Amino acid sequence: VNVFVPSPEPADPALVREYARELASEAEHHGAELGDPRFDDDDWEAKLELAQEQRIPVVSFTFGRPDADVVERLHAAGCAVWITVTNVDEARQADAGGADGLVVQGLEAGGHRGGFSDADDEGGMGLLALLRLVCRNSALPLIAAGGIADGAAVAAVLCAGASAAQIGTALMLTPEAGTDAAQRRQLRESRPTRLTRAFTGRLARGIVNRFLAEHSSTAPAAYPEVHHLTSPIRAAARGRGDADGFNLWAGQAHELATERPASEIVREMGAQARDAVAAVSRRLG
Amino acid sequence: VNVFVPSPEPADPALVREYARELASEAEHHGAELGDPRFDDDDWEAKLELAQEQRIPVVSFTFGRPDADVVERLHAAGCAVWITVTNVDEARQADAGGADGLVVQGLEAGGHRGGFSDADDEGGMGLLALLRLVCRNSALPLIAAGGIADGAAVAAVLCAGASAAQIGTALMLTPEAGTDAAQRRQLRESRPTRLTRAFTGRLARGIVNRFLAEHSSTAPAAYPEVHHLTSPIRAAARGRGDADGFNLWAGQAHELATERPASEIVREMGAQARDAVAAVSRRLG
Repeated sequence: VNVFVPSPEPADPALVREYARELASEAEHHGAELGDPRFDDDDWEAKLELAQEQRIPVVSFTFGRPDADVVERLHAAGCAVWITVTNVDEARQADAGGADGLVVQGLEAGGHRGGFSDADDEGGMGLLALLRLVCRNSALPLIAAGGIADGAAVAAVLCAGASAAQIGTALMLTPEAGTDAAQRRQLRESRPTRLTRAFTGRLARGIVNRFLAEHSSTAPAAYPEVHHLTSPIRAAARGRGDADGFNLWAGQAHELATERPASEIVREMGAQARDAVAAVSRRLG
Repeated sequence: VNVFVPSPEPADPALVREYARELASEAEHHGAELGDPRFDDDDWEAKLELAQEQRIPVVSFTFGRPDADVVERLHAAGCAVWITVTNVDEARQADAGGADGLVVQGLEAGGHRGGFSDADDEGGMGLLALLRLVCRNSALPLIAAGGIADGAAVAAVLCAGASAAQIGTALMLTPEAGTDAAQRRQLRESRPTRLTRAFTGRLARGIVNRFLAEHSSTAPAAYPEVHHLTSPIRAAARGRGDADGFNLWAGQAHELATERPASEIVREMGAQARDAVAAVSRRLG
């Protein structure tokens, strides 16, 4: 189970109000009302309690490092704690903070950047360089994430020091995935992605569509306020199958996603990874 | 030998003049005059003739795809033509344009982004995802570039479909490299890099220093004009050992660079790559 660490404090309400004014015509266009841009912790404490009760084997975190007491509670319940990092400094902090594993997220990843802050960091570090740097700064098991969409990429991150690969976008066309029909169509095509705060107020990678193009330069850093603000618009657009009106989260390798059961994809990735490693092994002699 | 394809047309002179006004105080600070922001092709034709005459085994290009007649001339002289690509569209164009190999440059790379245009593309694609996408769109040999600084990273890009790895920053501390002393000190440290047009008018990755931080948001897309404009300032800063006044090109994994002869580094990378592949091979069974 992955849990979002709550934002430390609300954003400047004036910035959120200004963005709400900009989105008024979007709401009208989609026949929706803007949502209430509330600041909340998304039931942080209730989720932690549930994770403890259920003794969830792995509880991973994005958007920050849980406090020492949270880590202790989860450890006491037998849960392993993984923390998402996007640079070496976060990796050092997570390691020092009692993590059992680090989810090393490259800038290739779809959806939210999972690092500790929402700073503009030039789009962040590429997965391969980041893995090598984190390897030199932590002995924890590393779970590589970001743009890994086939077995050759899995083999690559294992060579680069990861213990495992985390697959996101490459499973979004499976029948098991709850991916919306309009988004499925976009994922199959060759379309650029970019990082944006337009939908949620926090940087996340999605396929470029009209909403993203029109609002990325003005959307404030205000999560979860903007998430709540745009939520009804996105629901309305999704309901109408309008792929230009909601968030099309996708990693940079989304074109490689295939429409098959998840079990087939994972099995094939394993076989491809073995083949890739065997081929390189023969070549290097 | 690598050759820069000339920019198709000069930038708007008004933008260059405005930037020159901004840099007047930099010039004064360094006791230098601003350079003449001329538009030129850096002796494009002379370089091509020399490459032909000398029958250079591999002539690679950045900043664009050479015309068909250039490719033909080089082929006639026995030169292989490699073209640098940063996305799938460029890879398809380079493949169709007669390239013998593609230098696949991820956003991790130090120095100039080598793609066909200087558009703001959100910092570009990570190397691993880009390699997998280009593999599906071209059967040409791929040379992976960007943030590859040790043998494990070499093994990773080979697994991801590259025929070879191109090493840049990881060789910049060798005695063979012409790296300035002030830059050598910065490369060893844990310092963030970012993309900037501040030094040359074209996006390039360097270690963040004062000049980069102060001028990145205002520098225009104007290569080679801005390159010539800032050249005397950079030379003066370099001469004084002032690492805050010139371009500290570096890839995202620059902390992994080591101070040893190039031959040792390359030999060790080979051995490390074999070890990395062997370890993964054992693990996957």
